[in-house]
Amino acid sequence: MKKIAIIGGGVAGLSAAIYALRANAEVTMFEQFGLGGLVLTIDKIENYPSYKSVAGFQLASDMAAQAKALGLKVVRRRVVSLTKNGDEFTIITDRGEYTAPSVVIATGTSHNKLGIEDAYVGKGVSYCATCDGNFHRGQPVAVVGGGNAAVKEALYLADLCSVVHVIAPENSLSAEAVAVENLLNKSNVVIHYGASVSEICGDEVVGSIKIFADGVVTEIAVDGVFVAIGAKPVTDFIRIDGLNMNRGYLSVDNRCETSVKGLFACGDVTDGPLKQIVTACSDGAKAGAFSSAFSATKAK
Amino acid sequence: MKKIAIIGGGVAGLSAAIYALRANAEVTMFEQFGLGGLVLTIDKIENYPSYKSVAGFQLASDMAAQAKALGLKVVRRRVVSLTKNGDEFTIITDRGEYTAPSVVIATGTSHNKLGIEDAYVGKGVSYCATCDGNFHRGQPVAVVGGGNAAVKEALYLADLCSVVHVIAPENSLSAEAVAVENLLNKSNVVIHYGASVSEICGDEVVGSIKIFADGVVTEIAVDGVFVAIGAKPVTDFIRIDGLNMNRGYLSVDNRCETSVKGLFACGDVTDGPLKQIVTACSDGAKAGAFSSAFSATKAK
Repeated sequence: MKKIAIIGGGVAGLSAAIYALRANAEVTMFEQFGLGGLVLTIDKIENYPSYKSVAGFQLASDMAAQAKALGLKVVRRRVVSLTKNGDEFTIITDRGEYTAPSVVIATGTSHNKLGIEDAYVGKGVSYCATCDGNFHRGQPVAVVGGGNAAVKEALYLADLCSVVHVIAPENSLSAEAVAVENLLNKSNVVIHYGASVSEICGDEVVGSIKIFADGVVTEIAVDGVFVAIGAKPVTDFIRIDGLNMNRGYLSVDNRCETSVKGLFACGDVTDGPLKQIVTACSDGAKAGAFSSAFSATKAK
Repeated sequence: MKKIAIIGGGVAGLSAAIYALRANAEVTMFEQFGLGGLVLTIDKIENYPSYKSVAGFQLASDMAAQAKALGLKVVRRRVVSLTKNGDEFTIITDRGEYTAPSVVIATGTSHNKLGIEDAYVGKGVSYCATCDGNFHRGQPVAVVGGGNAAVKEALYLADLCSVVHVIAPENSLSAEAVAVENLLNKSNVVIHYGASVSEICGDEVVGSIKIFADGVVTEIAVDGVFVAIGAKPVTDFIRIDGLNMNRGYLSVDNRCETSVKGLFACGDVTDGPLKQIVTACSDGAKAGAFSSAFSATKAK
């Protein structure tokens, strides 16, 4: 029997499960929280192809149901470590261990947070302009951050929103020169250097932010706040030598295999250039299909 | 204004449109037939993440509606050529031309032909059992080919037609074991191994085929002929130097950009290792997002 373990139960992992199960693999998924991952928390999704608009909870639940109907086994434990011994991978959880000839890592990322936004997440605060920018078309928004991600988010939003306030912690933007130049050329972008967000205000939804710079607090009316101060791929449980990483993300080839044979990765934890639900699902399809094929060669 | 042209209106092109339109690009799609492409012809889809089962027509129509609601402009003309002059791409159609700083190719694949069937296409010869099988209900038909596609077509037709003759070029079927076993279990399927079709006969419409095997020609009465011998990426309209190809497919990087700056490709026309609806949509998302970003840099 082809055995596969999938670590992480977001949409990337669920898609991997669907493809592996349809290829007749025995699939065990390790996820301590609800199946669907971050997508569960998204209010409204308008860019997953085929749905004009769908709640994240609905989309995630449908994928989970689809995988379960195919026979997905879920172990609701935290994964403590992943090691490789000879041809076998070993997953140690906080209760018991499991081995498999092929493993798919789909643990995603955790966004770095400002620490003051929790009440407004999904109510104007977002971590992804490509996902949520369209909800603020023609409105003023803020981007918090001064690195590559922040500049990219601001550029994207400048073409959509009336004004984009960039709240940059330093006195310059630390991003690619071309991107910075493009941003500075936008007439509707205001960059607040050396500034930080001290408060997010609004009645239920975001209405304004207070920023602090040069000893002064200013209130700016915004409809949305895009926090772009980095994200951290969840990889600290991996104890395997020779695994290529790219700025902390797992490097994968176009079949979603890592530099370690039999070890696949999909979704936000990889170094893919676009992090969307549909790209995560596509990665998952590849990881599921090719890990099954790999596992089949070991199951003789 | 960011301008993008998308050539081809299958699910890859539609997903590219959705992402580009949401990034506020002005998107023109060139498609002479129905939006949705080959997916329109699929009877039942069970591996697009989130749907346990959905008709191809439904899925394709939903994606088309989603793109149209965002403002997609469709030009229903055949594209004769794509050229590049300086920083501009030029699309010449059978009526009029169009220029854009960035182009997405989403033309998919076309079916390989036997070379002897042209006079009978639409008169008994078909490339899609799901589309045309019903016209031959209760009649004898032939499927030409011995791979996955041929086995799938034969399985579908076995439930509709009186007899299904499979004309397989090799001495075995090279398809998934489960599918082959299912086919061999059908009492109304006759497999002709090591055989080829030498002639299609009939008065206006298909009446019989002549097959050649072991030095002998045999005539078999059939009402329909389903050709399932593979597909060819549609790239012959492209007249651009320095475009890298891989076995006829367009080579793309992980952002779905080809070797020519500003020229993107997505879906079946690319050299991706897995050809699925979700992978085509993911490619489309990347092509749409990154072609918009590229176009923005040219739109000063």
